[in-house]
Amino acid sequence: MEEVKVDLGEKSYSIYIDQAFLAEGIRILRTKTAAKRVLVISDETVGAIYGKELLAILQEANFLAELVTVPAGESSKSAEHCMALYTKAIEYGLDRKSLIIALGGGVVGDLAGFVAATLLRGIPFVQIPTTLLAQVDSSVGGKVAINHPLGKNLIGSFYQPQMVLIDTDFFHTLPARELYTGLAEVIKYGVIADSELFAYLEANSRAVLHKDSHAMQHIITHSCRIKARIVEQDECETSVRAILNFGHTIAHAIETATDFTKYNHGEAVAIGMYGAAKLSNYLGLCSQEEVLRVGKLIEKLQLPTAAPDCNARELLPLLSRDKKVVNGKINWILLKQIGEVVITDEVPEELVQRVLSEITE
Amino acid sequence: MEEVKVDLGEKSYSIYIDQAFLAEGIRILRTKTAAKRVLVISDETVGAIYGKELLAILQEANFLAELVTVPAGESSKSAEHCMALYTKAIEYGLDRKSLIIALGGGVVGDLAGFVAATLLRGIPFVQIPTTLLAQVDSSVGGKVAINHPLGKNLIGSFYQPQMVLIDTDFFHTLPARELYTGLAEVIKYGVIADSELFAYLEANSRAVLHKDSHAMQHIITHSCRIKARIVEQDECETSVRAILNFGHTIAHAIETATDFTKYNHGEAVAIGMYGAAKLSNYLGLCSQEEVLRVGKLIEKLQLPTAAPDCNARELLPLLSRDKKVVNGKINWILLKQIGEVVITDEVPEELVQRVLSEITE
Repeated sequence: MEEVKVDLGEKSYSIYIDQAFLAEGIRILRTKTAAKRVLVISDETVGAIYGKELLAILQEANFLAELVTVPAGESSKSAEHCMALYTKAIEYGLDRKSLIIALGGGVVGDLAGFVAATLLRGIPFVQIPTTLLAQVDSSVGGKVAINHPLGKNLIGSFYQPQMVLIDTDFFHTLPARELYTGLAEVIKYGVIADSELFAYLEANSRAVLHKDSHAMQHIITHSCRIKARIVEQDECETSVRAILNFGHTIAHAIETATDFTKYNHGEAVAIGMYGAAKLSNYLGLCSQEEVLRVGKLIEKLQLPTAAPDCNARELLPLLSRDKKVVNGKINWILLKQIGEVVITDEVPEELVQRVLSEITE
Repeated sequence: MEEVKVDLGEKSYSIYIDQAFLAEGIRILRTKTAAKRVLVISDETVGAIYGKELLAILQEANFLAELVTVPAGESSKSAEHCMALYTKAIEYGLDRKSLIIALGGGVVGDLAGFVAATLLRGIPFVQIPTTLLAQVDSSVGGKVAINHPLGKNLIGSFYQPQMVLIDTDFFHTLPARELYTGLAEVIKYGVIADSELFAYLEANSRAVLHKDSHAMQHIITHSCRIKARIVEQDECETSVRAILNFGHTIAHAIETATDFTKYNHGEAVAIGMYGAAKLSNYLGLCSQEEVLRVGKLIEKLQLPTAAPDCNARELLPLLSRDKKVVNGKINWILLKQIGEVVITDEVPEELVQRVLSEITE
């Protein structure tokens, strides 16, 4: 078992990572909480596969547990589903010492986390992320949110879980495209902070694509560790945490332009990272070789480097609708070399246009 | 000008209290924020009286400001109004460095604060409470919330304002009953933590009932100071902060039983405090004299000590629906002597029934 500690003072917690880990993880949880009632929030797909097993394990560990599911997919991150979950949680009798467990991917984690953050002004919650994307990204760092009709994740909080349990056995049921989308974020960690992780992916792409347990545990642990170190420095994204958005400014524009249907998050991030690398090179920040390495690894891990379904002129205005825009200026996260990025808001619009044209060809 | 500092580490802020203070308060605010855009959230009543003046002052201080109002009254603390405010705020172009100002009583402060806490995962906000109740209670301490159809304040956060501006000139337009309801919380501070404040109220009830500026500034400053000291020790209400709920367990039951129409919050708290004092005496915790002093001051300040419109048998089950109930047990805040309370969950139900009977006669 690997343990990654996230040190946030009173809000510190651990991420545990292992194979065949669900029952053992809940036993660890039992030693850390006096909670009686647990509401497990999942989606219909994941709930159908793992819901009963988790409920049985929770009952075994002396919790009173109930499962509630939402439809699978982004549309469940709505105010309506959120309200329905509040109602369910109140009717089930949760109090401030009860527990909400998020069992699922990023949608479930964000939604259940937001419910936990705002119900009775905050009740403890535990993340059991079942997708690679959620394991390395959304379940770590306390960002929880629901969507507003005018944009994704516009309503949310920073709210840390009490524990994150990652079982690599969940990969047995993870569709290939869902694996790839998570790998985009793993590549990102390599690019922004860990050239060794990047090199590991280059050297072990086969094992990773075959979901080899050892390789998965390695990349998850290193990804979570990087994210934990960054979040520790800047919990509420006022400074350095912004580097986690490498590739995301363009990605959000691509997702918005294609109504979140054509590319999934990791695919959009992959394209966005390639675009950001190009932009860095055009600004003289990094070499052409670095750009090629980024592009090559993205493709090796079955991810796209271009969005031919998008149109550069359409993407441009969408860039400035990003949440990280402050007083109208875009903060770009750009590449210096694999493992090191810089933040700048001084990027000529012509260069941005050039990059957008190239990645939409 | 009085300044009460609330020391919460990175989340520290000051409460400023003065007469004819609005313009000066905004000038102080301007020195502490680089925000451009400000959304002022108010209710129709307060917005009509002070909205234009505040907008002019904000523009004078070089803010871009807009006013949005909700209907006056508790029903505005709904998920629907909250969603409408998110939409308004996003359309107005607020970003993470913008500002939300709550101009109004507790409803506006709770609602606007919850919007600020959850929009873009939290944007700065400032409280300008216009009622005594909001000035001494809800605007201090960071509790923000909206209501759920199954109960009040069930959805919320702990989210600290950047500043609280209290102008005693707001009292010119405050209806008498609104003054009294605030006085109930001031009495509460005396009872739980400050026998001098209690004695000041006994000796200066006339000045207070006439909204004398000096007297108001005195009781507001002392009330805010007590609340600040308690919140500093326990921001998220896991321990000592519970004593702020003195009188509130019974009060919530009375409010629920009468559908929040018969008694306003302070009136219910006044009855609840008298009930809690009686209960303390029956348990042998305090003397009969203390109970009489509490009852006398309540009546002197135009507040009730009984709820003849309620029925004891109806109130009893409502007590255990309080948010502070943990694992089914009610935490009672009880009186030892004026200025000192204790917390206990060991109270025989017969005594509770006796008190409920007496205060509903």
